[in-house]
Formats: sequence, C-alpha cells, structure tokens
Amino acid sequence: MNALVDINCDMGESFGAWALGNDEALMPWIHSANIACGFHAGDPGVMARTVSLALKHGIQIGAHPGLPDIQGFGRREMSISPQEAYDMTLYQIGALDAIVRAKGGILQHVKPHGALYNLSARQAEIAKALAQAVCDADPSLILYGLSGSISVKIAAEMGLAVKHEVFADRTYQSNGALTPRSHPKALISHPEEMMAQAEDLLLRQQVCSVDGEWIVVRADTICVHGDGPHALQFAKMLYERFALA
Amino acid sequence: MNALVDINCDMGESFGAWALGNDEALMPWIHSANIACGFHAGDPGVMARTVSLALKHGIQIGAHPGLPDIQGFGRREMSISPQEAYDMTLYQIGALDAIVRAKGGILQHVKPHGALYNLSARQAEIAKALAQAVCDADPSLILYGLSGSISVKIAAEMGLAVKHEVFADRTYQSNGALTPRSHPKALISHPEEMMAQAEDLLLRQQVCSVDGEWIVVRADTICVHGDGPHALQFAKMLYERFALA
Amino acid sequence: MNALVDINCDMGESFGAWALGNDEALMPWIHSANIACGFHAGDPGVMARTVSLALKHGIQIGAHPGLPDIQGFGRREMSISPQEAYDMTLYQIGALDAIVRAKGGILQHVKPHGALYNLSARQAEIAKALAQAVCDADPSLILYGLSGSISVKIAAEMGLAVKHEVFADRTYQSNGALTPRSHPKALISHPEEMMAQAEDLLLRQQVCSVDGEWIVVRADTICVHGDGPHALQFAKMLYERFALA
Amino acid sequence: MNALVDINCDMGESFGAWALGNDEALMPWIHSANIACGFHAGDPGVMARTVSLALKHGIQIGAHPGLPDIQGFGRREMSISPQEAYDMTLYQIGALDAIVRAKGGILQHVKPHGALYNLSARQAEIAKALAQAVCDADPSLILYGLSGSISVKIAAEMGLAVKHEVFADRTYQSNGALTPRSHPKALISHPEEMMAQAEDLLLRQQVCSVDGEWIVVRADTICVHGDGPHALQFAKMLYERFALA
Repeated sequence: MNALVDINCDMGESFGAWALGNDEALMPWIHSANIACGFHAGDPGVMARTVSLALKHGIQIGAHPGLPDIQGFGRREMSISPQEAYDMTLYQIGALDAIVRAKGGILQHVKPHGALYNLSARQAEIAKALAQAVCDADPSLILYGLSGSISVKIAAEMGLAVKHEVFADRTYQSNGALTPRSHPKALISHPEEMMAQAEDLLLRQQVCSVDGEWIVVRADTICVHGDGPHALQFAKMLYERFALA
Repeated sequence: MNALVDINCDMGESFGAWALGNDEALMPWIHSANIACGFHAGDPGVMARTVSLALKHGIQIGAHPGLPDIQGFGRREMSISPQEAYDMTLYQIGALDAIVRAKGGILQHVKPHGALYNLSARQAEIAKALAQAVCDADPSLILYGLSGSISVKIAAEMGLAVKHEVFADRTYQSNGALTPRSHPKALISHPEEMMAQAEDLLLRQQVCSVDGEWIVVRADTICVHGDGPHALQFAKMLYERFALA
Repeated sequence: MNALVDINCDMGESFGAWALGNDEALMPWIHSANIACGFHAGDPGVMARTVSLALKHGIQIGAHPGLPDIQGFGRREMSISPQEAYDMTLYQIGALDAIVRAKGGILQHVKPHGALYNLSARQAEIAKALAQAVCDADPSLILYGLSGSISVKIAAEMGLAVKHEVFADRTYQSNGALTPRSHPKALISHPEEMMAQAEDLLLRQQVCSVDGEWIVVRADTICVHGDGPHALQFAKMLYERFALA
Repeated sequence: MNALVDINCDMGESFGAWALGNDEALMPWIHSANIACGFHAGDPGVMARTVSLALKHGIQIGAHPGLPDIQGFGRREMSISPQEAYDMTLYQIGALDAIVRAKGGILQHVKPHGALYNLSARQAEIAKALAQAVCDADPSLILYGLSGSISVKIAAEMGLAVKHEVFADRTYQSNGALTPRSHPKALISHPEEMMAQAEDLLLRQQVCSVDGEWIVVRADTICVHGDGPHALQFAKMLYERFALA
C-alpha cells in the first residue's frame, strides 16, 4: 500500500562553519527534502553533502530557493520585483540541479523558502514569476506551495504539477492562511497536538482554525520543520502513522 | 573560410546598481562570451540580460565561475580546498546553464575567472577539481584555460575538450606563464603592440617573452579584456584581421 | 554672508571593482557628504578614500547607513525589526566614525539611505530606533531626514539636532510625501525645472505638489543626487545661486 | 593577589539564524572576550548581545576583526594588500567600539581572527598595517598576537601595548610557530594534556615542541577556544588553577 501523504522537510540549512538542523537523523522519516540553494542558507559544499545524504536515503530532492539574505535567513520580506523573483529562482534551481545530476539523481520539486514562500502565496505577480521560473527550468518539476494559495493555483493553471502543503505545527486562520508568527497562538509545539492536527489535515482534509471554525484544506504534502525541539519525534510519529502500512 | 581563432571576452560583470564593461558594443566583435555567475560579479538579473544579449548576437556562451568574493571581484587568491573549488564551480555552471537553457540556448564552455583561473593554472589539485566539476556538469563542455598550463593539460587528460587561451594585452615570461601584474612590464596597453603580439600568437604560435626569448605558445582562443580603455578598438582590429576573410 | 542652505550629496557609493558617482567633481559644489558605510555600497577602502576627499575639500561628513543589501543597493524595503534597525545603524556609524577620526576629522551627521530612509520616514518604531542609535553613537550628531516626516520629528523630540531635507529632482504629493518613483511624474530631470523647485523650496519654503496644490515645506538641507545625468550642472547652479554671495 | 594570566576567548561568533559557541557558560571563567565584528561572523545584533553579556560579567572587551569571508569563517587566507588589511581592521574596530560605548563600556584590545591573525603573524607589511589601524583607532588599545611573532613585535615598536598569546590546545614547532592544522599532531584535545602545556607556558614560559625541543615562549594571555568539546571544562580548570588564589 502506498503512503497516504508526502512528508517533506527543509534541509541543508547549514552554512560555512555553522550547523543547523538534524538532517541525517530525519532522513529515514521523510519522503522529500527541500534543499537550500545558497541565498538564505546552504553553501555549495553543504548543498553537495545534503544531496548525497538524500540520495543515500532514497529521498526525493527539491530545490528550496530563498531571498538573497544570509543574515536574515531569508525570512525578512523584501520588496522584490517579479523579474527579480524569476531570476533568483531560476538561478538557484539551476545550481542545485547541476549538483543533483552530477551525483546521478533527478530534481523532483521546488519549494520556495520563508519570505519568498510567503510572498508567492500572497502576491499573484510573484507567484506567476516563480512558477514561470520553475517551468522554464524544467516543466516536469512539481511546485510545492501553501495549500489553497495563489502560489499553487497559478502554477497549476500554467500546467505545472503542484502539491498543496499543510503544516501540523502552525495554526490556521478561518480564511485558510497560516496564523502569523506574531500571534500568540501561531505555533503548535506539543507533538500530540501536532499529530491531532495532522490527522485532521491528512485524513479528513480539514482543520479547526484559531477562531474555532472548521475549514477545508487540501493536503498533498505535510511539512516537518527540522529545527523544532520535537522535530525528530514528530517526524517518526507522522511517518509511522501515515507513511507506512 | 573559417575564422582563424576564437575571440573570447569576459562579460556580465556588472552587479546590482553597478555597471561594468561595454558588453553590447563588444558583442559584434567576439565569438565567445564568458559570463560571470554571481560569485565575483553578475547577479541573476545581470546574468539573464547578458545571456539574452549573447543569444541575440549569436555568440557562444560560457560560464565564468569565480571565487566567492564580490568585494574583491574574485581577484584575491584564497586558500580554498579542491573540494571547495569543485563545489563552487559546479554550482555556478548549473546556475548559468539553467538561465541559458531557459532562453533556448546551449552552454558551450567554462572559463574560470581571476584568482580561480590562476589557481587552476598553477595548482594541480585545483585544476583537477575544476575539470571534474566541468565534466560532471556536462562532459561536452569545453574548458578554456591558460595556454600550456596544467589547467588545460589535466582537463584534456580527463577527456574534456579544451582551448588554450592567449593574451595580447599581457606579456609572457620565458617559462610560458604570464608576467605578474605587479611587474612594470606586465601589461601591453597600446593597440598596435597588442596587434603585433596577437599576430605572433595566432599566426606563428609563438611570443617574445619579457626576457627577450621566443617561446612556443598554443593559441586556440584569444582573450579581449572588456574593461580596458582600448578594448573596443582592439576587438574590432582583431576581429577584422583574424575572424573575417 | 552665510550660505542660505546646506547642499548634501550621497557619496562613496562605489564598491570593490565598481565605480559609481562623480564624487571628486561634485565636492566643490556641496557642503555635506553622506558617505555609504558598507551595507548597501562602500567597502572599507572606498569609505577611506571618500573621507579623505571630503576632508581635502573641507566638506562636512555624515554617515549614510543602509540596509544589508549590496545586490539591491539598499533600495529594496525589507521587513526589519526596530532592534535590527538600531543595531545596523549604530554599527555603520561606528565604522565610518573610526575612519573619520583616524584621519583627524569629525563626523557631523547621519542620513539613512534608500529603503532605510523611507522606512524611517514612515514607520515610527523604525524612526525611533534609528534616532536612538544616532543618539547612542554621539548625541551631538545631526540627523538628516525627509522634511516634515516622523523621522525628523521623533529625532527632535529625543533631543537630536535635525535637518529637514528637500529634493529638487523629485515631485511632492499634497500630503508632503515624495511622489513614489513608480509614478510617471515622480522625477524632475531638467536642470531648469529643478532650479525652479529649489527656489520655491529654499527661498519660500513651499512647493507645488503634483496635484497642483501649494504646500509648506521646511528646507534645512537640499539633496543633490550624484548619479543623475545633470548632477554636476545642477550642483553648480545650486551652489552659485544659494551657497555663495 | 592578582591573576597570573589573562584568559581570553573568541566570542560572538554566531550569525543570523546560526548559533555557535557557548558564550554565556564560558563568561565566568575568562577575563577577556574577543568579539567578532561582522566580517567572518557576528552580525550587528549578535555583537550587541555579546557586548551586553561581557559587560554583565565584567569581562574586558576586545574587537576580533576578520577577513571578509562569512562562508569561510575568516579561516581561508586571502591575498589582501596592506591597505586592505588596514581599512578592514579600522572599520571593524570602529563598528564594535560604537556598540561598546553605547552600552557604557570601553574597548580594551584587538585580536585579529583566523587567517588575518596568521597573516599578521607572518607578513610584516600586514602586521604593520594592522597595528597602524589599531593605533589610529585608539592608541591605548592593546594588541593581542601570536607570542613571539612579528605581529606583536611590530605593534610594540609602534608604541602599542601588546599581549603575547599562547595556546594550550595547539602544539608548537621548534621555531615557535604553531604546528599547522594539517599536521597530525597539531591539536591537543585532552584537557589534562592542555593543562600540562598551560602550566609549562604560564608558570615556566616554555613549551616542548612537536620535535621534542624545549623552547622559550612569552605568555601574557592564553586562548580558550570556545567551540572545542572540552572548552568549558578546560576553561574552568584553567581559571581555578591560574586566575584565582
């Protein structure tokens, strides 16, 4: 029997002398690795080592392009033009793709990082530019984007395969958007609560918003944040519950 | 009748708000453009515009990877490991290649920039790592390197096509190496003198060293530095003398 | 007789191999140089040379701190926190101040650059953080900010000396804000028109908005953008009309 | 009774989202903190937090300037000119000094980092440029440099106060230089062996080289590397043995 869901995780977010995340330990419990491409994290050496690790574990590899902001880890929104979004996305996909192909692998998907992810989920022009870059890099790539957002809608209209992404460690607003991190109830940090929300999302394609309203959410892939304190425990629980059988 | 030689020029070396070079004016007078890949110059937008320009003029496109040193324009030697040389070269080739392919072009060659060029002409381990990265990116790529250096020798042994590069605006030492820029006679700045050396190099495959000794030099491609005061004039003279007929 | 106004110009905006602006030619026609501090332009060597030039011409020196965005020249707005604004401003002032003091000069003022200037003119929390950084660096520094904006208001309330800055090459909206660059009538590019607006601003402390409404504007200092095609001509006209006599 | 020695530690080497070192735990066991200044590690926010921590613990604060190489953590040697060394050192000292003064502290010393430290210990022109930058920033600053090297000799001749630095976790060659990291016996990793070498260095001003020869070494300050696995244990042992009583 197939897995019920794709479990994805952001990886390769070390940089130079600085280590981040727990990539090796998480690999057995995920299906898809989104690998940072050097603009917000991940220098060329980190990228190469992370690609090797993913190939060793037989995991699907995706590019995880970000804004050019090492100091801010790609999390600070910048007022970029659609052309800039297109150019930086194509550049980063190409860089990772060369590394993946050199090791005999195949790039499967693209998931934008942090502020670029959020911008593309909210601004149609950025979403369009980003999807076009993915398309121009390779029309068989899958775009991962926030479930229900214009990011995936526009990419699908353009003919790209897409995966609607959901989160078990973030709460939702009644309009389907994630609750901003500044909100006191933005984060779900207890593994049991994460699992409960994961079950709602993956088995019933719905979630209870912070306002107590049940909303419908399409869930093709679920994100495990590798840097949380319970990341490994949650990834294992998720994998054993939904990805085996 | 074919051109007697390949005229190449480093291009796309602007960055952000800063313009450098005279790419558009030079394009009609060269055959191959070595396009900076973001590490020493050339942000993703500059790269895209330069690729478009080269395609419009029907010029061969090469990647021009450099050391990660925007402030030093990739000219300051750094003590990098062969692994770092491999990783940064593969990364930069991939980034440019994606842009070229997205515009319907094909990447033809790779010419390392500045200090990376010099390191690969002098250190066998760096030369090997660099050639391996070119090979792993695409074994049909041509490596441009300093004529007679280990850079081209090692690449050729590895099975890569190579082009031995010569310079009309730099003097040579009796051992075939370029005279270091710190030497008072390192540079040839008068177009007539450049043309005389170009004729020696291209027609007779020889050059008179700073010590007055004639040495044999293989000349597959000749470099036009786009930022010199006489760059355009020299490129035209060179083109009309050697590339037409 | 004293000059009627302070003429300021952004300077030292070269970086590494890239030259920008026409600092040396402009120096005789201005009173205050705002020198880039390395985050959006101006590496340490450029800063040192620009400070020397300003001291040679007897011009007042100001720090011109920007967002950490070399590729975007500090012009792309970023969602920074007030703490980040404080820290990056203090850092950049300190770096320039050490260079100025080493050459026997005294830092006179601080004028934020580009997106940091705009953020501080619009967001009270950023304005406060920036003014606090100036204050903590040296309470005798003068803050230059957009005339009438919260940037100068907050700084003045904090006890800092301020200069309300006006522009002759930008149009104003009826609310006193600059017309955004995206607006077709945002820029004034003809020197005669610039001079006409400069006279309104400097002699009558008023300006005619793009909507045809006359508004009152306090003008303590006027900016000359060094990179415009008529920069030198305009600076001379301005200087001869208002700074001599 | 005074401490027999100054114990120093490199600190503030986190960057953006990446944490490095164990600054808070180590603070009670050292006298002097060398704080990274943004070029190899330590963004403005990290610098501010580290300065606050050092002031809270009553520890002396030094600037720890490095080469402009975030990706390589300032450890890759670069062929910089003396002028570049001067400019980058003065810039970084100024940036940290402004932060220290804003918090009511006083900068005590400067210790160059990594490759800049090694270059200044070996190349007289770099040593001179660096000492001049320290001098021009503030002639009362103390320069920390490799014991017996030209770095401290040149600085002392220039009139600067200096501290000859020794290492308990690195072996020495018979000429007084540190054994290069590439050598199999370069590192001393067991705390007991470190303490034995520390006693030789601090009590007897001598050390046994990797070749078995006893050499004389002046020891004004001893470095604790904060990132080693036994860093905290060693710092405590060192402090209790030499800094109390």
